[in-house]
Amino acid sequence: MDTKIGSGDCLAWAARDASGILSPYRFNRRHEIVGVVTEVGSNVKGFKVGDHAGVGTYVNSCGEYCYMIPDGYPLALAAPLLCAGITVYTPMMRHKMNQPGKSLGVIGLGGLGHMAVKFGKAFGLKVTAFSTSESKKEEALKLLGADKFVISSDQQQMESMTKSLDFIIDTASGDHPFDPYMSLLKIGGVLVLVGFPSEVRLHPGSLNLGSRSISGSLTGGTKETQAMLEFCAANKLYPEIELIKIQYINEALERLVKRDVKYRFVIDIKNSLE
Amino acid sequence: MDTKIGSGDCLAWAARDASGILSPYRFNRRHEIVGVVTEVGSNVKGFKVGDHAGVGTYVNSCGEYCYMIPDGYPLALAAPLLCAGITVYTPMMRHKMNQPGKSLGVIGLGGLGHMAVKFGKAFGLKVTAFSTSESKKEEALKLLGADKFVISSDQQQMESMTKSLDFIIDTASGDHPFDPYMSLLKIGGVLVLVGFPSEVRLHPGSLNLGSRSISGSLTGGTKETQAMLEFCAANKLYPEIELIKIQYINEALERLVKRDVKYRFVIDIKNSLE
Repeated sequence: MDTKIGSGDCLAWAARDASGILSPYRFNRRHEIVGVVTEVGSNVKGFKVGDHAGVGTYVNSCGEYCYMIPDGYPLALAAPLLCAGITVYTPMMRHKMNQPGKSLGVIGLGGLGHMAVKFGKAFGLKVTAFSTSESKKEEALKLLGADKFVISSDQQQMESMTKSLDFIIDTASGDHPFDPYMSLLKIGGVLVLVGFPSEVRLHPGSLNLGSRSISGSLTGGTKETQAMLEFCAANKLYPEIELIKIQYINEALERLVKRDVKYRFVIDIKNSLE
Repeated sequence: MDTKIGSGDCLAWAARDASGILSPYRFNRRHEIVGVVTEVGSNVKGFKVGDHAGVGTYVNSCGEYCYMIPDGYPLALAAPLLCAGITVYTPMMRHKMNQPGKSLGVIGLGGLGHMAVKFGKAFGLKVTAFSTSESKKEEALKLLGADKFVISSDQQQMESMTKSLDFIIDTASGDHPFDPYMSLLKIGGVLVLVGFPSEVRLHPGSLNLGSRSISGSLTGGTKETQAMLEFCAANKLYPEIELIKIQYINEALERLVKRDVKYRFVIDIKNSLE
């Protein structure tokens, strides 16, 4: 692949029709504004032109850097921090979830959820992972370090957690009931939604009785992102990734649709061009 | 009416059948636990045996006092503080709504809403009152001291408030949409629900985009209630009430159903017994 590109020329991979198939694409960045895919997440439901696709901008083929990656922190591992990482780190800091000894529930164990578990443990929290899939249990406990694993469809397991959590981070994008999770919060507890279900619907008692809150969050600002990068470096906190070359992108996107990724694909741009 | 009652005997008015009509009732408090109506609010939708009825316990006919009413604070005005007052004061303090210069929206202008407007002004906030009824405008602005009055069904008036509020207190118990109010909050803003609609339903974007929160609250603890009483005395903050004798209770309840009260009935027990 030709890497000798002019000052305004960019080399990228792009989907240019409704098939969603990506292929090499050259463009002049003086005339076009694009997001270059460097990290794609498990929250992708399908990938067609125009869809949201967990697009990061950590590095693009024009060599532009947004943040200072701390010395020694592997670049490939830094990429998911700038999307999945900051998306959960921001509300965790805003809602003071960095108090050791407090209890955190994490709903969903995809790109966002696995980072929430890791941050929770780094903050000294007692972390319970909630998933619909028993198959995630071993990894949640052993790889990610969760203290507890609960199958959310198991009413008995759910009820055993009543009023036990200070915080919940809800990373599930699919529709799901909220009341059963709200009842797991202690008085004054907060559930933070970072996913996008089609609606949020709950009984007012889930808020009023126990002075509970449901809050939303989207991503974070530049200062907070830099602070997170430094926290991750200092605490040797690393996302779980699969490093791929750009040539693998179409297979990767197909696997994302099947939720078959642990836990983020990261595209090695430099080695893809060699 | 006989006021000479034994140590365990209590004299009260009670509804003892489904008609909801109250009449004098003598009972022994060693054997029965009751709430004695001393203050009834505009949030009553109907009054039948077993219904929620804004029951306060500030004083009952057995002469039990729960709180220290500050010297000089009229007892009749203290009664609604212990229900409507503390219900809005508690979340206002918890969510730091006592920062002068911040902006507060108050949905509904009944017993709770009118106290939220008064607390808001006492805290130095810019207060906007939201109501479905144009008829409440003059009183909201002149009697309660709101800075602004918005008819919530008027889309243009609502849109003019977009992203302008730090906080909203929602005292409406009837069903109403939440998304239009959430869009009036600034980034990081919070809506506190103190009413009981049949459900809370909103678009996740109302939470995620702008990191907004919806929180619930029920009432307050004893320490906070005492602090509120002292705040009200120090700031000469008084609820609006209609003082009635117990003999008027059945008419008062009928008027409550028609929402015809400004803004709380308070029953003068002592003079009712003379």
